Amino acid sequence: MALEHAYAVIMAGGGGTRLWPLSRRQRPKHMLPLLGTDTLFQATVVRLQGLFPPERLLVVTTAAQRSALHEQAPFIPPENYLSEPAPRGTAAVVALAAVVLRGRVGPQALMGVFPADHYIGQPARFRQVARAAFAWARRGYLVTLGIEPTHPATGYGYIQRGEALGEIEGWPAHRVLRFKEKPDLETARQMLAQGDHAWNAGMFFWTVERIWEEFARQMPATHAVMQDLLRAWGTDAWDATLRALWPQLQVETVDYGIMEGAQDAVVIPAHGLEWSDIGSWDAVWKLLPKDEMDNAVAADQGLVLDGRGNLVYGRSGRLVTLVGVDDLVVVDTPDALLVLPRKQAQRVRDIVRVLKTTGRQDYL
Amino acid sequence: MALEHAYAVIMAGGGGTRLWPLSRRQRPKHMLPLLGTDTLFQATVVRLQGLFPPERLLVVTTAAQRSALHEQAPFIPPENYLSEPAPRGTAAVVALAAVVLRGRVGPQALMGVFPADHYIGQPARFRQVARAAFAWARRGYLVTLGIEPTHPATGYGYIQRGEALGEIEGWPAHRVLRFKEKPDLETARQMLAQGDHAWNAGMFFWTVERIWEEFARQMPATHAVMQDLLRAWGTDAWDATLRALWPQLQVETVDYGIMEGAQDAVVIPAHGLEWSDIGSWDAVWKLLPKDEMDNAVAADQGLVLDGRGNLVYGRSGRLVTLVGVDDLVVVDTPDALLVLPRKQAQRVRDIVRVLKTTGRQDYL
Repeated sequence: MALEHAYAVIMAGGGGTRLWPLSRRQRPKHMLPLLGTDTLFQATVVRLQGLFPPERLLVVTTAAQRSALHEQAPFIPPENYLSEPAPRGTAAVVALAAVVLRGRVGPQALMGVFPADHYIGQPARFRQVARAAFAWARRGYLVTLGIEPTHPATGYGYIQRGEALGEIEGWPAHRVLRFKEKPDLETARQMLAQGDHAWNAGMFFWTVERIWEEFARQMPATHAVMQDLLRAWGTDAWDATLRALWPQLQVETVDYGIMEGAQDAVVIPAHGLEWSDIGSWDAVWKLLPKDEMDNAVAADQGLVLDGRGNLVYGRSGRLVTLVGVDDLVVVDTPDALLVLPRKQAQRVRDIVRVLKTTGRQDYL
Repeated sequence: MALEHAYAVIMAGGGGTRLWPLSRRQRPKHMLPLLGTDTLFQATVVRLQGLFPPERLLVVTTAAQRSALHEQAPFIPPENYLSEPAPRGTAAVVALAAVVLRGRVGPQALMGVFPADHYIGQPARFRQVARAAFAWARRGYLVTLGIEPTHPATGYGYIQRGEALGEIEGWPAHRVLRFKEKPDLETARQMLAQGDHAWNAGMFFWTVERIWEEFARQMPATHAVMQDLLRAWGTDAWDATLRALWPQLQVETVDYGIMEGAQDAVVIPAHGLEWSDIGSWDAVWKLLPKDEMDNAVAADQGLVLDGRGNLVYGRSGRLVTLVGVDDLVVVDTPDALLVLPRKQAQRVRDIVRVLKTTGRQDYL
């Protein structure tokens, strides 16, 4: 059964360089069939379809990606693909979606915000917890999901839970005590040991009315733009107004701009989703099927001899061969090749930085 | 000054899979500009030009390679490019060249035999020792050069030197006590410790008359073919005779078929040539210029960050990037890619074997 008055806002504007050289500015992660035949965007849409009919899926993307995404999910009405005039952070995406939903539906509309480029291995369980989250959102809370941490990751934000508020359909909810952005390793270890911290997966649930209030309280410049945009909604002036006012939106993430200072923030510990933000080639390796030597070979033609724990990702049509190497990542694309140790997969950014500073924009 | 009556026979028919995926059946090692702009064949020709005028350079190759090689060295007369009808080992190459030289010049012709795919860093010194070798050859010896071993290699044949015969222009010559084909590691270590062994570099010097005698004595079936071929030399029947008789030649190397059992075999210790048979990607790495981190980057576009001792060989036009890896070989060609540890470079053959047995002939 679909949730009444509930809408999904799929954030599909990201770039992301952590999966270079496969992901590029013009072909970001969510547009890639990274783990199978569906792109991550398509997988996100499929996962949400059990909760929302297509006309209640909003996709916020860029002008450059819009038509390609519409081709990937043509059953979503074209007017549900919103284009950001320029990237200004996830708070701007949420502000735009809130204006559109307030204009179309009204302040009582429920809004779930979902990244387009994450993996969830247990989508049915995800839909259960999303229903619980919407129930708390309907009561006026700003709700987020907390992913049970499996290691002291330094690349994620953490959420510390406080007072228990109760359970809905078996999912307990807690007031948020504190958001802690990407910690150092020692802090991450402490948070893990404490046992009351979860990873922030960047999924949010609230009514349009509540998020509107939070923008008014915490991001007044953005709030002022939202009011002006709302007045233009449904008029011929919409497009021009959006373009004109967009630069006045504060450049900020939802996490910093809204959640850290939010009143009535709630976290639902969402265990067992098999969630991954697929934030590195090591994460891709973890999610792919592996042979008996723990090699993941996702290549048109790949051959690993006497090697263990390698990821071979080949999308160039070429034959990729490895012999006698362990725990390597080899990513082969038509114009660029990457080789690095899987356990240092975050160092892709070093390559990307050098390409930027040496003017090799073609490869970004 | 060019040597009188002396001819170079350049063996340029090899295939060789040790530098896969760059070298292929259709594009063997000697046809590649592996270390610079000249191919190894061209570098061999240039090295020999100080000893022989172009009309005294014979190239023995295959029908498939002949025109490409002629393009690489067009100043060698076309009739000096001889085609083997099919590969039957280096003894057959030598037999064919001996017939041609006997037909053209006579039994007194001096013949030097040189692989087309070796590297010699000191070509002037090489020409000195070759002159000395020809002087011994003129006296009726079968002469080979012995390369001073630098490590207990198991991939080379070894030559043990015996009685000293004297010196020519400062180069001492010794009778060969024994040829020992590719030894195991322990045997190689013992030979190195003894101090009287040298590597067999596959270069030979003799008169046509003497090698003819050795064929008669040691390889009578081949010798019989040589006699028949000689009768056809200079007649219209040459091509047809060559094709008809070629399958009767014994399939054998010069080393096994002639040198191991030769009478009057002589070795000249040829130190300081900076010789390499470029028999592995590790050998290529050793010969290429390196950056301050010991990386050899011979790629159209290569980038190594925080890695040491790598070889990046890129001939696909693509950007090849490595970060945080050491002592790797990465060879990038338009249709195939190889990654392996530099110190296990000989394992290329494992890949090639699998490609053969799984029917992927396109890549060989």
